[in-house]
Amino acid sequence: MSQAAERAVVLLSGGLDSATVLALAVSEGYACHTLSVDYGQRHRIELRAAEQVARAHGVVEHRVIRVDLGAIGGSALTDLSIAVPERAVAGIPSTYVPARNTLLLTLGLGWSEVLEAKALFIGANAVDYSGYPDCRPEFVAAFGQLASLATRAGIEGRAPEIRAPLMAMGKAEIIRTGLALGVDYAQTISCYQPDVAGRRCGRCDSCRLRQQGFSDAGLEDPAQEPPPFTIAASGR
Amino acid sequence: MSQAAERAVVLLSGGLDSATVLALAVSEGYACHTLSVDYGQRHRIELRAAEQVARAHGVVEHRVIRVDLGAIGGSALTDLSIAVPERAVAGIPSTYVPARNTLLLTLGLGWSEVLEAKALFIGANAVDYSGYPDCRPEFVAAFGQLASLATRAGIEGRAPEIRAPLMAMGKAEIIRTGLALGVDYAQTISCYQPDVAGRRCGRCDSCRLRQQGFSDAGLEDPAQEPPPFTIAASGR
Repeated sequence: MSQAAERAVVLLSGGLDSATVLALAVSEGYACHTLSVDYGQRHRIELRAAEQVARAHGVVEHRVIRVDLGAIGGSALTDLSIAVPERAVAGIPSTYVPARNTLLLTLGLGWSEVLEAKALFIGANAVDYSGYPDCRPEFVAAFGQLASLATRAGIEGRAPEIRAPLMAMGKAEIIRTGLALGVDYAQTISCYQPDVAGRRCGRCDSCRLRQQGFSDAGLEDPAQEPPPFTIAASGR
Repeated sequence: MSQAAERAVVLLSGGLDSATVLALAVSEGYACHTLSVDYGQRHRIELRAAEQVARAHGVVEHRVIRVDLGAIGGSALTDLSIAVPERAVAGIPSTYVPARNTLLLTLGLGWSEVLEAKALFIGANAVDYSGYPDCRPEFVAAFGQLASLATRAGIEGRAPEIRAPLMAMGKAEIIRTGLALGVDYAQTISCYQPDVAGRRCGRCDSCRLRQQGFSDAGLEDPAQEPPPFTIAASGR
């Protein structure tokens, strides 16, 4: 990566979508700085996955910010007393984390400002998704508007562009795009409730969307059981 | 407070402005839930002040969320290697924390959603202020727009109203308003760089704005030296 490359902050969860987004940002020539947020999610093994994905794509720097969203609760992902649904539900499922993507983008925006980054990437997707309100294009557009007003960079006319390149893609298309860019999906984990060894449940929304995506793409999911990383380094 | 009172989330920093906002929210009859964010600020003694102010105003519940903004740096308030300016500067001073108010509002928005709160209060003020971009009315309006798109509550037409009742008030007016509502400003701390005993520096922007406010109001600042709280419970 040449020193003159523009910087981008890429939100990286350790899942399939954000790994693809990182590959896209790298393919555009950005010097990528990846950010994971440890918000007390059940599936913290994904933080290990994110680290590994970041390394594989040669990012400039990978950082983790810890935010204790368990303090406000309200989601099956941050409150162990709320069950993860194991079949499709009507409406927004209990795995919805209040204001999660706003939080991720906000932390990314703050870091973008420090880095003077040109773009801030998020893996939001409104096709094969769980119906979360903060995955929709109108949400991302409103955040872009906010970013231009909220920061010093915005006032100076250089707020980062908020990029959600997967927004209109189906899961199979995302997978094909990532494979063409060299993403190793064996390094990613999508399950909302993996066991301590990192084995996916195969039943949650996120597992089902991933399985359907590989199946629609006519491909086999390369995920290993157990995965090539353990929960030890980031476990509770 | 009757059980039927509508809920509000009030962002509480421990400073003069947010104490006044809390008093205003209580005076409107809201059942108030206060939120402080420990974002690694220098002046963490303000977290103790916030707790005391919350108690004095009989809030339903006071919570603290920890977010390590030091991980991204970029501000004199979160990075000890950057000096706090001790006189007025041109432009936005180094005490500006990238995306800070966006972060505070986002955490408040998430909690509002869990509580089904009707309103989310912030002490942002664009009159006697430090020129931070995220204290301006257009920022608060853009956040309200985002809130209506970002959350389940928003989709269901019951996003909390984002309230910044001090926005157009001068500091003297804020002080008079708070005093009329029984705020004890001795419980608040405004300094960006108090010493470990909580003694204010008297030179930072925040100290100067406070002094000017009391002086314009023809009043004496009741702040005690040292203040009636210590850094022990929330110190680094």
